[in-house]
Amino acid sequence: MNVFTRPILEINLNNLLDNYRVLSNIAKPAIPAAVVKDNAYGLGAVEIATLLHEKAKTDHFFVAHAIEGQAILNKLTDVKIFVLQGVGQDSAEIFKDYPQLIPVISCPEMLRFWQSLKLQNQAAIQVETGLNRLGFREHDLAGLSKAECKSFCLVMSHLACGDEKDHFMNEHQLSNFNKIKARYFPEIPASIAASDGVFLGNNFHYDLVRLGAAVYGINTAPYRPNQMKNVVTVKAPVLQITDLPKGDFVGYSATYRAAENRKIAIVSIGYGDGLPRSLSNVGKVFFSTVNGMEEARIIGRVSMDNVICDVSNISKLNIGDYGIIAGDFYTLDDVARDAGTISYEIMSRLGKNTRFDKRYI
Amino acid sequence: MNVFTRPILEINLNNLLDNYRVLSNIAKPAIPAAVVKDNAYGLGAVEIATLLHEKAKTDHFFVAHAIEGQAILNKLTDVKIFVLQGVGQDSAEIFKDYPQLIPVISCPEMLRFWQSLKLQNQAAIQVETGLNRLGFREHDLAGLSKAECKSFCLVMSHLACGDEKDHFMNEHQLSNFNKIKARYFPEIPASIAASDGVFLGNNFHYDLVRLGAAVYGINTAPYRPNQMKNVVTVKAPVLQITDLPKGDFVGYSATYRAAENRKIAIVSIGYGDGLPRSLSNVGKVFFSTVNGMEEARIIGRVSMDNVICDVSNISKLNIGDYGIIAGDFYTLDDVARDAGTISYEIMSRLGKNTRFDKRYI
Repeated sequence: MNVFTRPILEINLNNLLDNYRVLSNIAKPAIPAAVVKDNAYGLGAVEIATLLHEKAKTDHFFVAHAIEGQAILNKLTDVKIFVLQGVGQDSAEIFKDYPQLIPVISCPEMLRFWQSLKLQNQAAIQVETGLNRLGFREHDLAGLSKAECKSFCLVMSHLACGDEKDHFMNEHQLSNFNKIKARYFPEIPASIAASDGVFLGNNFHYDLVRLGAAVYGINTAPYRPNQMKNVVTVKAPVLQITDLPKGDFVGYSATYRAAENRKIAIVSIGYGDGLPRSLSNVGKVFFSTVNGMEEARIIGRVSMDNVICDVSNISKLNIGDYGIIAGDFYTLDDVARDAGTISYEIMSRLGKNTRFDKRYI
Repeated sequence: MNVFTRPILEINLNNLLDNYRVLSNIAKPAIPAAVVKDNAYGLGAVEIATLLHEKAKTDHFFVAHAIEGQAILNKLTDVKIFVLQGVGQDSAEIFKDYPQLIPVISCPEMLRFWQSLKLQNQAAIQVETGLNRLGFREHDLAGLSKAECKSFCLVMSHLACGDEKDHFMNEHQLSNFNKIKARYFPEIPASIAASDGVFLGNNFHYDLVRLGAAVYGINTAPYRPNQMKNVVTVKAPVLQITDLPKGDFVGYSATYRAAENRKIAIVSIGYGDGLPRSLSNVGKVFFSTVNGMEEARIIGRVSMDNVICDVSNISKLNIGDYGIIAGDFYTLDDVARDAGTISYEIMSRLGKNTRFDKRYI
């Protein structure tokens, strides 16, 4: 008899490395950079950065916040780390201590602040081409001196709809980026493509590509089957199997009622572990049985530590068996579709859960 | 000129302590226990447990997993910690090392496993009364010997609809619990109320109440205005303020288009920080200005590190000002309503984000 209580998060580093290499090859001769912000989408920034540095010779990284870069630089030294949220009074000290950190400057006010620090770090500039998020607008660029324009080590922008191959925004942003580059930054290395942009063709690759989501197995080209290998597997043990009598309710607020006698399993994972609560009465848990992969529907609300699923039709199931939440055959992209969000958000949540037995494979 | 980049999470420990005391008083003479699972709903289990132990003399705690209890026992020793997910082969060693850990046994199989370990720790039993989640069913209880029934230090169950005062499930579960207790556990201390049950009246208090959500400021009695003080404040700096020309799109997948010229602010917080992506085009950011609290709508998709909001009508706003995501006047319960979930889930996410400047006040 097996009894287990903890959910497990498996991260397949070989697949992650393969994905990174495939993407790097497509983008050649552009320099590949690894996006490891938000703790490498939850999977462990220091671990992933170290792996890519050692096995794939990656020496360019992107994070969102300076403290994220600091954590990596305490392990790796001979690398460059771009900081997408830029620099402020609350991070200036970190830039001072780590000359490998490169702030991505997104507006004139931040540039003035950066200049006032008089540090020797390189700096990059973000320009706005259609996303209407961070970045210098045309009228901001017009205020830069020639010397200022030449001072940046990278000019970058970001696509709004790179995961939709034929979206008009892609060509629109490309055209805007080319105009800005020609006018203000003719000699500066450039970058507009994240993982999704890599699949849009050579004209999106420029000098550097920023490889994130697809490295972690997310399908950033959802207009066709995923060409990346799966990286994340999530599973959790069955704590209890029991009958659910006809007419009984299940879970908080009694949102499910059994129309007939059912069999249920209580599985040891909940929204506290990063499983979206929006999977309530919608999500699925899979079990590997003698009949192959069998599907059990989540019934009632997902609670903080548990989900309840209907296992009436699962042929052979025991306490201690693991329910599979996501894996090769049913990926986080599939889970995200059921949950009404994107896999980026789920991955980012799962990885932060310290209750997982986190296994790098 | 101010330039900041990091979001801030403030946790008001005085208010938390006040909430705990108010709840303890309502439930008197029941023993108050603090629920600090899921890292104290994200706010820091070790910090909160230590505070409640030192300032409110709390010596009973509830966690979900043994490793969560272990972390607390490395700081506090003279306490009892109930482990709601119980015990398994993947946590038995921890129970062996920490006799203060009390597994909550939820099914006969787990009981057999627990007995096979022959440890000296106390054990509690969970019984099913209507939630149809973890717990012994009637037919499971019938299989227990009298000695086994007497061996537990606590018999507990959990309410499905404790946050709905007049829901028939409350009386239904209470009646079931009373029957089970009278039949199998007449002399064993009992507990059915979490925060929400405390407000349902003395007959729900029994010997021990489990104080969680309401301690952290969540309104667990949403049928009336919140009587708890607010604990969590979330704010994030404005990185950039810029014009949004009529006809322009905003954010990923271009889900927002400006019907007229607008002014936007890019605020340095995203779903990577725990802000639900379901706030896209729905959520609000507040700014404290000369006119008081002014509201700005989130436009476009929430991205991993940023949200964009429409500040056209905000009178005076500067880069470096902080946008308030949640606070006293607009609580996490309000945010959760906008996001289509419950504040428990959002709180649990926010607290896990290491990019926050986390401040205990």
